[in-house]
Amino acid sequence: MNEDRNCQWRIARRPVGNVVAEDFRYTEENIPCPGAGEFLLKSYYVNVAPVMRMYMSGQSAAGERPLSIGDVIHGRAVAEVIESSHPDYAVGDFVQGQVGWQTYKVSSGTRQEKIRKIPDLGVSLSVALSALGMTGFSAYFGFIDCGKPKAGDTVVVSGAAGGVGSHVVQIARILGCRVIGIAGGARKCELIRSIGCHIAIDYKQGDVAAAIEAACPEGIDLYFDNVGGEILSVCLDHLAMRARIVLCGSISEYLRDEPFGLTNYTNLRRSDATMRGFFIYNHVDDFDRAERDMGEWLSTGELRPVEHIFDGFAALPDALASLYSGTNLGTALVRVRRGPYDEQ
Amino acid sequence: MNEDRNCQWRIARRPVGNVVAEDFRYTEENIPCPGAGEFLLKSYYVNVAPVMRMYMSGQSAAGERPLSIGDVIHGRAVAEVIESSHPDYAVGDFVQGQVGWQTYKVSSGTRQEKIRKIPDLGVSLSVALSALGMTGFSAYFGFIDCGKPKAGDTVVVSGAAGGVGSHVVQIARILGCRVIGIAGGARKCELIRSIGCHIAIDYKQGDVAAAIEAACPEGIDLYFDNVGGEILSVCLDHLAMRARIVLCGSISEYLRDEPFGLTNYTNLRRSDATMRGFFIYNHVDDFDRAERDMGEWLSTGELRPVEHIFDGFAALPDALASLYSGTNLGTALVRVRRGPYDEQ
Repeated sequence: MNEDRNCQWRIARRPVGNVVAEDFRYTEENIPCPGAGEFLLKSYYVNVAPVMRMYMSGQSAAGERPLSIGDVIHGRAVAEVIESSHPDYAVGDFVQGQVGWQTYKVSSGTRQEKIRKIPDLGVSLSVALSALGMTGFSAYFGFIDCGKPKAGDTVVVSGAAGGVGSHVVQIARILGCRVIGIAGGARKCELIRSIGCHIAIDYKQGDVAAAIEAACPEGIDLYFDNVGGEILSVCLDHLAMRARIVLCGSISEYLRDEPFGLTNYTNLRRSDATMRGFFIYNHVDDFDRAERDMGEWLSTGELRPVEHIFDGFAALPDALASLYSGTNLGTALVRVRRGPYDEQ
Repeated sequence: MNEDRNCQWRIARRPVGNVVAEDFRYTEENIPCPGAGEFLLKSYYVNVAPVMRMYMSGQSAAGERPLSIGDVIHGRAVAEVIESSHPDYAVGDFVQGQVGWQTYKVSSGTRQEKIRKIPDLGVSLSVALSALGMTGFSAYFGFIDCGKPKAGDTVVVSGAAGGVGSHVVQIARILGCRVIGIAGGARKCELIRSIGCHIAIDYKQGDVAAAIEAACPEGIDLYFDNVGGEILSVCLDHLAMRARIVLCGSISEYLRDEPFGLTNYTNLRRSDATMRGFFIYNHVDDFDRAERDMGEWLSTGELRPVEHIFDGFAALPDALASLYSGTNLGTALVRVRRGPYDEQ
């Protein structure tokens, strides 16, 4: 990476199946200059998320405009303000926001850029993209505000070893729920047990429906869905009365040719149950509460974000591909440069 | 009908497609005698409901056990207590409850029988199976408690000319919502306009998606679903932010060979929306509130139940078939004998 240039990843073509190297184009430009009321951001960590393939496919998602061929790819980053004439952002401030897949960005702090200052907790800036970023906040608002968990609830989390899932598992454990995690493969199942799953179900081994039935003899009180498709359908067949399903992600749908047809949604009726989707930026007015609670759990050590850090700006395409191939563990992040609390 | 005998309709065979005469068997028995702590009920009105085909197909539904061939068919009725040694039920009381398709029943007032006394409002007993029965209560709790309407909301009701639907349309109008009703055919569309729909969409004419789009330019705030399937899917494509979908019925699924596969349930995410099923007997502790509010709207004339009354006990099979053939208007009921406020 050239420190004196703005390095960027752009979309070269629409992906077919999982993203591959040819879908991306690396470019360099001069570092941009902030104008009046603007500030210059230098990236430290850049996020990858399942939604990014939707951006690349030309779909509008997560409140971002669809990408045209040649555009810099959308993505959140942790960055430092290194020049500023904006009254709210001073040189030396660290922020998270919609910087895109690039190493520098000029921002004017508009709502669309979703810039948010980062508290100094004495830990790596990476947490601003995991526990204290949209990944952790999605887990927090999705699980707590939408899922309305009670201590003792039987909670099922799919994609439990992923970015959002690994946070949900821990929050559920902290709140006294009985947590059943679903993940693919022995390594992920070992991980989710280590962070609080009472039972780990490997969906690649054996019959998920039978495993859910055995794990939840009285039914599921709260299902946090990161995958959609067949596993959502299985959980709809095992709802306890007044169950809640929170739809957070549907990674199983991204690479499928035909979308999954959910036939048993009618089970919501007999269980007096709710299926709730949520859009994280509708909760923006409550972000301070999430930051406070998650920050407290981080500081007591109850919550330990699982981060899968890819090193170097060049790794962004590989990091994104890891989400769809299912090889990432926890929140996938790319470290562009080391931050204040990172080991040197 | 023989007044001196207990006349009954029993299941003769499992239905294939819509119910036909051969699926039923008419029997007569001696009028049963109540024992200690029991009471004898004489039916006036008997209810038919879409769920009954599920009973007849051997499925467990609405908290009732599956029917075996030869069983008396489940069904709610309005009845008079004509003998009693039960402390809570006196001769002359009128009740609604799970009497079944028969003209007399001995009851012990168990929870399973769901017996509930009827207030004397000076109107036909039939309202205890429409506005003040499970049909009206389903509309009330589904729309108000689950749907959480606000004045000014754009509300879409499918099956709007049906039993539950025609109540929902009127409650929505009373609460100040903008009501779009969906029904099949000109006669039903005329009906739903007359009870409060601002726009009536005939799903048998033209493109429902285009009609919904035109009727709801800012999206649907609340969709009350009585039909499931394609129309549910269309509404999922037109949700306003924070929309609520209430799943009440899925009449479109009953006669379908393959269940409908809902692919766009993921739209709940981007709209921060909720899809909620409900089971009416979970709201039993609140029935008094529904009875009070609905009774008040009845007495002011704001709510006028649309009843499709089939005359005579012999008409029960035809009345049930009318639900699946879509020929009923409003709540389908069978009058077994005239009650106190009925014209003679």
